[in-house]
Amino acid sequence: MTLTGEFFIAGARRGSGERFQAYDPAKGASIDDIGFFSATEQDIADACAAAEDAAIACADLPLERRAAFLDAIAAEIEALGDALLTRACAESGLPLARITGERGRTCGQLRLFAAEVRDGQWLKLRIDHAVPARTPPKPDLRLRMIPLGPVAVFGASNFPLAFSTAGGDTASALAAGCPVVVKGHPAHPGTAELVAGAITKAAADTGMPAGVFSLVTGTGNAIGAALVADPRIQAVGFTGSRSGGEALMKIAANRPQPIPVYAEMSAINPVILLPGALAARSEALAAGYVGSLTMGSGQFCTNPGLVLAIDSPGLDAFLAEAGRLVEAQAPQTMLTAGIHSAYEKGSAALAATPEVKTIARGVHPTGPHEGRAALFSATAADWLARSALQHEVFGAASIVVRCAYRSELLAVLRGLEGQLTATLHMDDADLADARALLPVLERRVGRILANGWPTGVEVTHAINHGGPYPATSDGRTTSVGTLAIDRFLRPVAYQDLPAELLPADLRDASERGVMVRVDGQWQIA
Amino acid sequence: MTLTGEFFIAGARRGSGERFQAYDPAKGASIDDIGFFSATEQDIADACAAAEDAAIACADLPLERRAAFLDAIAAEIEALGDALLTRACAESGLPLARITGERGRTCGQLRLFAAEVRDGQWLKLRIDHAVPARTPPKPDLRLRMIPLGPVAVFGASNFPLAFSTAGGDTASALAAGCPVVVKGHPAHPGTAELVAGAITKAAADTGMPAGVFSLVTGTGNAIGAALVADPRIQAVGFTGSRSGGEALMKIAANRPQPIPVYAEMSAINPVILLPGALAARSEALAAGYVGSLTMGSGQFCTNPGLVLAIDSPGLDAFLAEAGRLVEAQAPQTMLTAGIHSAYEKGSAALAATPEVKTIARGVHPTGPHEGRAALFSATAADWLARSALQHEVFGAASIVVRCAYRSELLAVLRGLEGQLTATLHMDDADLADARALLPVLERRVGRILANGWPTGVEVTHAINHGGPYPATSDGRTTSVGTLAIDRFLRPVAYQDLPAELLPADLRDASERGVMVRVDGQWQIA
Repeated sequence: MTLTGEFFIAGARRGSGERFQAYDPAKGASIDDIGFFSATEQDIADACAAAEDAAIACADLPLERRAAFLDAIAAEIEALGDALLTRACAESGLPLARITGERGRTCGQLRLFAAEVRDGQWLKLRIDHAVPARTPPKPDLRLRMIPLGPVAVFGASNFPLAFSTAGGDTASALAAGCPVVVKGHPAHPGTAELVAGAITKAAADTGMPAGVFSLVTGTGNAIGAALVADPRIQAVGFTGSRSGGEALMKIAANRPQPIPVYAEMSAINPVILLPGALAARSEALAAGYVGSLTMGSGQFCTNPGLVLAIDSPGLDAFLAEAGRLVEAQAPQTMLTAGIHSAYEKGSAALAATPEVKTIARGVHPTGPHEGRAALFSATAADWLARSALQHEVFGAASIVVRCAYRSELLAVLRGLEGQLTATLHMDDADLADARALLPVLERRVGRILANGWPTGVEVTHAINHGGPYPATSDGRTTSVGTLAIDRFLRPVAYQDLPAELLPADLRDASERGVMVRVDGQWQIA
Repeated sequence: MTLTGEFFIAGARRGSGERFQAYDPAKGASIDDIGFFSATEQDIADACAAAEDAAIACADLPLERRAAFLDAIAAEIEALGDALLTRACAESGLPLARITGERGRTCGQLRLFAAEVRDGQWLKLRIDHAVPARTPPKPDLRLRMIPLGPVAVFGASNFPLAFSTAGGDTASALAAGCPVVVKGHPAHPGTAELVAGAITKAAADTGMPAGVFSLVTGTGNAIGAALVADPRIQAVGFTGSRSGGEALMKIAANRPQPIPVYAEMSAINPVILLPGALAARSEALAAGYVGSLTMGSGQFCTNPGLVLAIDSPGLDAFLAEAGRLVEAQAPQTMLTAGIHSAYEKGSAALAATPEVKTIARGVHPTGPHEGRAALFSATAADWLARSALQHEVFGAASIVVRCAYRSELLAVLRGLEGQLTATLHMDDADLADARALLPVLERRVGRILANGWPTGVEVTHAINHGGPYPATSDGRTTSVGTLAIDRFLRPVAYQDLPAELLPADLRDASERGVMVRVDGQWQIA
């Protein structure tokens, strides 16, 4: 498949006028390419109009068709072969092994949502039969979930496949029956074009309405702002910076009809090293920590940016070993020039903070846009006095906060903003400490781990990738795993409708094969 | 139980300083009473601090305790006996039969949520077992829903029991495990005090933490604004005017940590009279319509404020009969002086609109604050040209919109803002018309009725009382029925936690008796 630099509006390539260039961060140079067009306001309006037309058509299709569409997207992405991998590596600076794994995750995610569509439990079918003899008569009521309508999805730079054009938000929104308009990330326009072509082909092959998917690309914030403001868009999925997410939240809240924004934004993911674990295996903990911290140049939303422990010889040993390992870390290309410079600025600001001690920096970079790991420490008292230390530095930077007492550790946790994850490293002797912390952690985070590392988010049924603000804009939902389909649904009740007008799944004689709550009782029927 | 004029902070009565008087709208005079205190900023902060303390304690209690608390509230409200009924009638102007029925609805609702707590399906338990042999190893993941934290509930004036201090929002938030701080409605402070006393006694008797419930009362907007802005509040439930709901949404969105607002605000609930039904039974339809329109002086969020039909002799007959019936309608006391004057102003504005024809007004009032039913008509063309005609006039006012063609009727529906309900009146001959309208209605409303009337919202499992903006602030949820518990929950995942630390419901050996999704399969275990 040859790149043309065009975007996609409802099944057709489009684009004219000036072009912007794709950029290879590892080479520090534009990719010698044909260049990419930017969508105009008219293009965005056309995409949204087509999505609105498709919304009703999509909602009416059999679920099997919707599932087949998701399966077909996965197959078409795989059919792009090495061309997709090569392009995504060039545009992201990420190594081939990582991008290959990410493609597997992306296609697995699409197929998981195809299976979820077929599962059908998310329809939340409920039937309350009429009781005509009651005073007043009880009506017949039946309920199901329906799609919200067209969804705007913002591709993320740090997962050019798994959280971008055909990533988790697109997969879950399509699974819910919502047409999707993707705002492609300008850091990987070629990757986006390839993937959008795969989705467009899958839509045509499975007979979906053309407006079910569009991709609008371009630089600057105007395209995204216009997309979120379009009255036909009914929800927004976003993964990126806190400032970016908050800007979209403001636009969405100020519309004549405010709409939900699911923004996954900012977290430092505290890791708590409990005394027993620290005494028993400080060096192994340091190795695991530095591995999680520096993987992918630290460019994960679940990166462990904060370590908490009580002062002890074990903590000294942990810090010493972690420092040695960080110093030996080779620099890694970061995703974009902007992310790299923000990382260097953030790390320098931490280093320049009087209360913050620099424990170690990684090997000095030699290539363009290479990030250098950074390990800092601070006392809990200083941390508590400086709320700015909580701000995420996106990349492989982390602070170890030394607590004098258990109560100080608790105070740090209590003062934390919302987080995606919290991790407990513990031995049997730490059980009581861990039990005491759990209720505090539950109030602040979306996922609690024991004796692992927060990077690596399993795409499955029991995962939650979300958390209280500002980890996400809406901690009531997850952006990873099958529960994400709920974000794009809303209930509709049908009262005393003749059977001919009821959705097939809600008729008494239906062969649904899914659970239904009938007169309050859960049953498979 | 003697009224003291005090409010309740975490189990204790409180109040000092100036007092405001309760008002009897039927008499048009203050109720000769001791007067009611207004909560100060400190009182609100104390209520929120106690709620925050209670949040963790509540989440840890066995579900049976939480259910027993809800059951006890219902019993305590019933134990208030006639004193509650008399007081609620005096403060609302609503007749005794209505308030007696509303008490039954309120207590039934509390018991329904107690049963829902015990049902436990809302925990959404999910278990994905580890697969250590996979590369990379798949971790053990388990998920459940937990309470959001303290919830602010705003009592509504139009249901002084069922949507107020111990109403649907309070019941569903408590069922979810969230402490509640109620902003009592100043239109029924005595009713609020009595009910708050019942809740406070029920909390003490069932051993709930005192902060699980507080009531702050007072006039003006400052108390509600301070409550929503308090950092400990994690969600808001509101039923009232669009301007009131939107003001709370703005406060919630501008907090350092934005929080969800569930505001049920504004709807005109279109009723579509299809040609077959209209030809067959125009007079019966008129009788049903005027009954629904004028019940309770039209002060329901599901009041039928808009009727749509295609011009025909049947429509003429419907309008003539509806006009006769409206003219014969006795005036009814409205809830408050403010609601009455807003109703008269809104009705007068409609009457003065050149394109709007006044079909009938009810009998002229003789008592204070009595509302007079109002029936108007307009052509679809004029309706479409004047978007202001869509604005709700809260009370027994309604517009019949005459459409020349099916396409015009469709255009009116397509131009409608979000609604709580839409109603189809239809005969067998209307099936095709109805089927064509359904997808359009589903996009715009939360509940679709056939051959009934939208007033009367069943409290049950398959009900949805919600709808796209501005019917509610968040059409993803319902404020009536058991599904409402979902509004106050969020997911938490536990990764590789030792069994001793897992919530009991998520252990392998658990006797849950509820459905669990284990490795993707739904099972009762």
